[in-house]
Amino acid sequence: MGEVAKLDTGRAERIGIPEAILAEGKDKVDLVKISLAHLEATGMVIVTRVSEEQTRAFEETALPSGAKLEHNPRARTVVIRSGERKPTCGRVGVLAAGTADIPVAEEARVVAEAMGCVVVSEYDVGVAGIHRLFPCLEKMRDMDAFVVAAGREGTLPAVVAGLMEAPVIGLPVSTGYGIGGGGLAALLSMLQSCSVLTVVNVDAGFVAGAYAAKIALRAYKPDVQKQF
Amino acid sequence: MGEVAKLDTGRAERIGIPEAILAEGKDKVDLVKISLAHLEATGMVIVTRVSEEQTRAFEETALPSGAKLEHNPRARTVVIRSGERKPTCGRVGVLAAGTADIPVAEEARVVAEAMGCVVVSEYDVGVAGIHRLFPCLEKMRDMDAFVVAAGREGTLPAVVAGLMEAPVIGLPVSTGYGIGGGGLAALLSMLQSCSVLTVVNVDAGFVAGAYAAKIALRAYKPDVQKQF
Amino acid sequence: MGEVAKLDTGRAERIGIPEAILAEGKDKVDLVKISLAHLEATGMVIVTRVSEEQTRAFEETALPSGAKLEHNPRARTVVIRSGERKPTCGRVGVLAAGTADIPVAEEARVVAEAMGCVVVSEYDVGVAGIHRLFPCLEKMRDMDAFVVAAGREGTLPAVVAGLMEAPVIGLPVSTGYGIGGGGLAALLSMLQSCSVLTVVNVDAGFVAGAYAAKIALRAYKPDVQKQF
Amino acid sequence: MGEVAKLDTGRAERIGIPEAILAEGKDKVDLVKISLAHLEATGMVIVTRVSEEQTRAFEETALPSGAKLEHNPRARTVVIRSGERKPTCGRVGVLAAGTADIPVAEEARVVAEAMGCVVVSEYDVGVAGIHRLFPCLEKMRDMDAFVVAAGREGTLPAVVAGLMEAPVIGLPVSTGYGIGGGGLAALLSMLQSCSVLTVVNVDAGFVAGAYAAKIALRAYKPDVQKQF
Amino acid sequence: MGEVAKLDTGRAERIGIPEAILAEGKDKVDLVKISLAHLEATGMVIVTRVSEEQTRAFEETALPSGAKLEHNPRARTVVIRSGERKPTCGRVGVLAAGTADIPVAEEARVVAEAMGCVVVSEYDVGVAGIHRLFPCLEKMRDMDAFVVAAGREGTLPAVVAGLMEAPVIGLPVSTGYGIGGGGLAALLSMLQSCSVLTVVNVDAGFVAGAYAAKIALRAYKPDVQKQF
Amino acid sequence: MGEVAKLDTGRAERIGIPEAILAEGKDKVDLVKISLAHLEATGMVIVTRVSEEQTRAFEETALPSGAKLEHNPRARTVVIRSGERKPTCGRVGVLAAGTADIPVAEEARVVAEAMGCVVVSEYDVGVAGIHRLFPCLEKMRDMDAFVVAAGREGTLPAVVAGLMEAPVIGLPVSTGYGIGGGGLAALLSMLQSCSVLTVVNVDAGFVAGAYAAKIALRAYKPDVQKQF
Amino acid sequence: MGEVAKLDTGRAERIGIPEAILAEGKDKVDLVKISLAHLEATGMVIVTRVSEEQTRAFEETALPSGAKLEHNPRARTVVIRSGERKPTCGRVGVLAAGTADIPVAEEARVVAEAMGCVVVSEYDVGVAGIHRLFPCLEKMRDMDAFVVAAGREGTLPAVVAGLMEAPVIGLPVSTGYGIGGGGLAALLSMLQSCSVLTVVNVDAGFVAGAYAAKIALRAYKPDVQKQF
Amino acid sequence: MGEVAKLDTGRAERIGIPEAILAEGKDKVDLVKISLAHLEATGMVIVTRVSEEQTRAFEETALPSGAKLEHNPRARTVVIRSGERKPTCGRVGVLAAGTADIPVAEEARVVAEAMGCVVVSEYDVGVAGIHRLFPCLEKMRDMDAFVVAAGREGTLPAVVAGLMEAPVIGLPVSTGYGIGGGGLAALLSMLQSCSVLTVVNVDAGFVAGAYAAKIALRAYKPDVQKQF
Repeated sequence: MGEVAKLDTGRAERIGIPEAILAEGKDKVDLVKISLAHLEATGMVIVTRVSEEQTRAFEETALPSGAKLEHNPRARTVVIRSGERKPTCGRVGVLAAGTADIPVAEEARVVAEAMGCVVVSEYDVGVAGIHRLFPCLEKMRDMDAFVVAAGREGTLPAVVAGLMEAPVIGLPVSTGYGIGGGGLAALLSMLQSCSVLTVVNVDAGFVAGAYAAKIALRAYKPDVQKQF
Repeated sequence: MGEVAKLDTGRAERIGIPEAILAEGKDKVDLVKISLAHLEATGMVIVTRVSEEQTRAFEETALPSGAKLEHNPRARTVVIRSGERKPTCGRVGVLAAGTADIPVAEEARVVAEAMGCVVVSEYDVGVAGIHRLFPCLEKMRDMDAFVVAAGREGTLPAVVAGLMEAPVIGLPVSTGYGIGGGGLAALLSMLQSCSVLTVVNVDAGFVAGAYAAKIALRAYKPDVQKQF
Repeated sequence: MGEVAKLDTGRAERIGIPEAILAEGKDKVDLVKISLAHLEATGMVIVTRVSEEQTRAFEETALPSGAKLEHNPRARTVVIRSGERKPTCGRVGVLAAGTADIPVAEEARVVAEAMGCVVVSEYDVGVAGIHRLFPCLEKMRDMDAFVVAAGREGTLPAVVAGLMEAPVIGLPVSTGYGIGGGGLAALLSMLQSCSVLTVVNVDAGFVAGAYAAKIALRAYKPDVQKQF
Repeated sequence: MGEVAKLDTGRAERIGIPEAILAEGKDKVDLVKISLAHLEATGMVIVTRVSEEQTRAFEETALPSGAKLEHNPRARTVVIRSGERKPTCGRVGVLAAGTADIPVAEEARVVAEAMGCVVVSEYDVGVAGIHRLFPCLEKMRDMDAFVVAAGREGTLPAVVAGLMEAPVIGLPVSTGYGIGGGGLAALLSMLQSCSVLTVVNVDAGFVAGAYAAKIALRAYKPDVQKQF
Repeated sequence: MGEVAKLDTGRAERIGIPEAILAEGKDKVDLVKISLAHLEATGMVIVTRVSEEQTRAFEETALPSGAKLEHNPRARTVVIRSGERKPTCGRVGVLAAGTADIPVAEEARVVAEAMGCVVVSEYDVGVAGIHRLFPCLEKMRDMDAFVVAAGREGTLPAVVAGLMEAPVIGLPVSTGYGIGGGGLAALLSMLQSCSVLTVVNVDAGFVAGAYAAKIALRAYKPDVQKQF
Repeated sequence: MGEVAKLDTGRAERIGIPEAILAEGKDKVDLVKISLAHLEATGMVIVTRVSEEQTRAFEETALPSGAKLEHNPRARTVVIRSGERKPTCGRVGVLAAGTADIPVAEEARVVAEAMGCVVVSEYDVGVAGIHRLFPCLEKMRDMDAFVVAAGREGTLPAVVAGLMEAPVIGLPVSTGYGIGGGGLAALLSMLQSCSVLTVVNVDAGFVAGAYAAKIALRAYKPDVQKQF
Repeated sequence: MGEVAKLDTGRAERIGIPEAILAEGKDKVDLVKISLAHLEATGMVIVTRVSEEQTRAFEETALPSGAKLEHNPRARTVVIRSGERKPTCGRVGVLAAGTADIPVAEEARVVAEAMGCVVVSEYDVGVAGIHRLFPCLEKMRDMDAFVVAAGREGTLPAVVAGLMEAPVIGLPVSTGYGIGGGGLAALLSMLQSCSVLTVVNVDAGFVAGAYAAKIALRAYKPDVQKQF
Repeated sequence: MGEVAKLDTGRAERIGIPEAILAEGKDKVDLVKISLAHLEATGMVIVTRVSEEQTRAFEETALPSGAKLEHNPRARTVVIRSGERKPTCGRVGVLAAGTADIPVAEEARVVAEAMGCVVVSEYDVGVAGIHRLFPCLEKMRDMDAFVVAAGREGTLPAVVAGLMEAPVIGLPVSTGYGIGGGGLAALLSMLQSCSVLTVVNVDAGFVAGAYAAKIALRAYKPDVQKQF
């Protein structure tokens, strides 16, 4: 099965996406066990949507020597890595329209950082007060990719993509109420945008962060430069 | 039946909305006949969605003495009034996000003008290039109401309502394509807006214009002032 | 950034909408703290969707000297203002079709009153017994704007807009059941109305009340009168 | 197969619904042929949605001796019966909210008349001018069943069912535009009605008319009276 | 306000629908109080969706002298009447496709009986075993109206309406799962039926029962007979 | 790539589905050319949704020696095979609820026959006259699989699957009108069925016919028998 | 009623589907009682969606002599049979795309085994790592039917049906999140598949397993072989 | 207005997206005129969805000296540039699942090439014959970004993103039929994908191509390299 079979053993690093475990609905003992197994196999594990109780279970666990645990309560993530952080490379900007969009934006940030990127974030810069956005964007001119989280009407990604050169990933958030709530209006509005941007599904912070990191890392990959 | 019955004869002027006729699908001879009947009864008639052929039929018709016809080809409207224009009073701002949104915005403008308002309009100021919007809004600080037409992602009304004091009516337009097209994304996004605004149905230029005029006229109604 | 930057500090009063805090999901200690901060900054704060427990937390809090708290249990709101009420000006009519629509209608009322309007309300006047509506409307002839809340089939706003001159804001309510429930039928039916009216999203009592107050206040703004 | 098998030959008269043929999409020669076959078998045939060309084909056909053809251009129906009309019995009221709802209402009327009912109709009595409705309803106090056709917001059936005793059938019509158009808002609004009524599908004039006639005829069925 | 005003006092008996109270979400003390008020005003009250606790509250209440309470646990209804049952008149057939559809069917039955009809019911006769249906229908040949409750695919009403002469009311039930669940497939399938029938909203047992009783009672109304 | 690569050349016969070409939207010259290429490569080609003009183009084409063309005008198919028909084996029953469902049912039949099955079909046996169905099913007791086509309410597959042992494939048809039309109600109703059946997409006659033939052929595959 | 009536007594074995009881929402005492009644009548009963508490109730029940109980905790099923297993015959392959799809896939397996089939299963072989699938399929070349469970994007059934000859039943699973979640995207994607496959509703493990067993058993039915 | 105003004149080159004109619905004379104006202003113009007649109009126009026109009939695009092509840099892979997806894929290709990228494309490699895909992907290992177009079930992007390292943009295409057609199933399935990918709206070939080029160009931007 040639090349295909090779992928079997080396897939994770070739695709370039770290292993992630959804904590939601998992027993805390099982969760810790699975996470440590992943840690041992790949040197890093990202656990998303962790409850406070699950976090305590992690904190009370004896990690392998040299391993470090980072807990981000806003993102509800736990990241454990067996050794040193990768040298940082690639710059990702993360924006959130409202305060309710921050947890999903933070999830994107944790993933992009875990993949070795520098992340600059600005939150609560939605279009209901559009003027707050401009000074933030000034500071982000050298980003390689943007994740822009927005619930309700979901407009912020289109505005950012109309002003900045780096690729923008629209991340709809399941805020909002009534008709078009749960992220539907946000998603549709990003798909209809007159700006050039792409979208991920509602609340898909992990996917948005990993995708942005992929774009940003590519700009610094030495072997890529040699090929042309 | 008291007060209710009185409404029967005097409804049009009390509700304050001029008579409008949808030309679409009507025979041109019938259309002219019905329009002249309305003109005679109420002194003014607004005909919307007129074809070129129907417009010619109006232009070739002998109007009653003193009557004046105005044709707006972008709005696809014909307005006939039997006498002088009302003295202008009330200021309505009309904005359109893209060039494809102009016909619906113009329909709103024709109606608001027919109801006696001064209308100031600015088109092609959508959020994909949000910076073009600010100088336009500066010129519109003294408006009494805004109609903001936007198709595709429908964001412009939320931005305007976040910056201006006068009430904003969101007017979704049936532009756009794929999923969320036909004005759906625009409508949902306006309903989900974090700004304070109200909406009308997709392409409802007449309703938006008449409603804006109602708000604007009320600010100048002399008898209202006396009551407090 | 000129005019845009100026908005940054003075936005709230220029847009004319008081600060509101959604209590739902907030810790009671945090809620009180944030509310007092807003009170200090702007002289008034409106808290919506407060639970009984949160209300008690407010009532047990020592308010700044001169501040007054008003709790409306049907609207589930708490309003705190640091000084005197604004002189009343502008008249808003609030109608609700059924008894289940009253909480959302009351939310609209609290906001309009907080913005300085006189509010007259009539509840349980839906179209299943349409004759009950007419005497109510008689008493409301001098209103400057109407908020008309209706769930299930959502017809009342269209009927009111067909009989009254002042602008009508349709406020769909998430009552109803089966297919078209949750306010969907009500919203669609208001959007399709043959009358001239605008709508807000399902259960958006705050938006409807603030918008109505904007219309009503404008009719009494002295500096506006001078400009023509 | 006993009783079931008996239904095979005598079904039409037992169920009490005349045979109807949808003309839309049928070749005019085939249409006439099928219609005459039905006429011969059952003594009456109702053809719905006939084009002008198909109507001419019927009018140019030599009917069997004694047969009579009735063409209703507004309803777009052709009814042919081989002998005398049934003695009339049962009273059906047919109402239409707007002028665009008349063709579907007329289709209901043609069917109810073909089934032997007296039909009283009133059109253009929608809720945007609700006061026009009351005098119409006064004249219809002795109806046995109502068909109430309404497009756009579809409110009229609920109003009628709140005022009249006889059963009301809501008939949504595919008028309307934008979101909720094509009869969707009308149907949902009828399903959500607080009044007691039933509905048929959008534009189902035939079903509504036949059902109303069934109710009305039952009130006069002599053998039914004897059984108690 | 003439005729309209007259409706005000005499509406309930003219429309012919008894007062019903939805128990769901009501405090048990309030519920009993409101129910007794209705009982006193109209001589009968129907309480729907009662919990076991609410039922006990009713059973522990001292009713006015002569009043009788009937509790139907499957329908989750309590009916209290101040005097004798009306003399029965009118026959309603109630069918349910599956056992899960019985509670909604029973709600229809309780209402029709409360309005004075004889109700014959047959449950668990759905189309997955269509042969069980025929003997049931044989026993129901003299019914004046049918309520046919069906969830999931909702087919039974169409089958019954294809075999029986009396009008059929389709009552979709919120059983089913996955896509088309919650009664949606059942409702759509009834609306699309090739048979002549009408529908009510999902789980609207009260509406279906009351409507069927209206049809059935009309066949026996002595004064109606005299008018022709 | 081993086994996977082998599939590349031999896929068609291993999967067991003949090549089919959708004629809709193709130029008639191109269509004939592509079809003959398929014929040469695999010995048979099925062309679906052919227009009359395309059919004539096929009939005027000189086929390779020994090839035979079969045109089914109701199914709108052309089948060309280079040699003899396969020996028949496997029995497929095809039912259609209404006459409008026949073209899609016929498409299923043509495919099943092309794959070597005996097909028995019965049309116009829908649930509005359920008693017509039973004698048809009696004749189909020895079928190996059923395709049951039904539009509008889509009930027939559930009834058949409740009475027959062989597997039933529900084939929704895009007949119907109003809400739930275009095959939506039919599809949902089949998915919700209490009987054991599977479904294909709306109008997917080819898929239904090929799948039924797969089931039927398997019952007669000699090499399969040996393996146990 | 001839043949139809005969079905009444012998339906279960003729249709070939064992009796199944949905445990969800049933009282544990009732559940055991109903199950034993079914066991006595038909020799086997399948109980689906059993809770841990209900399972304990079964395990503490004294079964009739010779009866055997099998509990599958992943499938959440209890199967009780009064005598020996049927001799196995027919081979069903069950695949699941992700680990979250396993419970529904296991439900299908339990049913197919209860009907006498040999089931081979492979889980966690989804398209995000498509190369893992091929070795699994190699081992399943002699299956008679496949059940392929997949949530989220629901692609696996199409891939399998493009590679294997035996009929594939797509089983969408209610995993996934955001827009298209709850199995909707999976179902639509299976319906749109370019491969030849059929689908059942979301989470319908019982239906998929029973249908696959029907197909597989047919290939080994001795009396079928004789008929040609 | 500082930085914001500067964007006004230099926006196009800073955002990095060339000007595009949608030809659909435009008069051919107007279209040529607008296109030449854009060409003069920015040195390049991309015209999408051109008809054959519009293409001829372009070909018959005298272009400015040095300008070159490229017409891609499959993509339905015309690209005119005033001088030399940019030096190529950045590699974009474009895949299409079926032949019907090629026009949209080609539109993406034309845009990416116009922005200076090398594009490698492979079409008709959908999942119904998944083995055809692997050799294609082998040739595309050094791509910087992928556009993967797929209609109907829309699976291909997920498969590619599971095998390749470079970022994948899912491009749903409005092929497909019945429920989930028009690109809906494809879009939802891409949003639900377990792989890391982003999506654009249905048929948005321009957006997908421009976004892929943005990613690819960034990997070669010399000034970016210096900043770290």
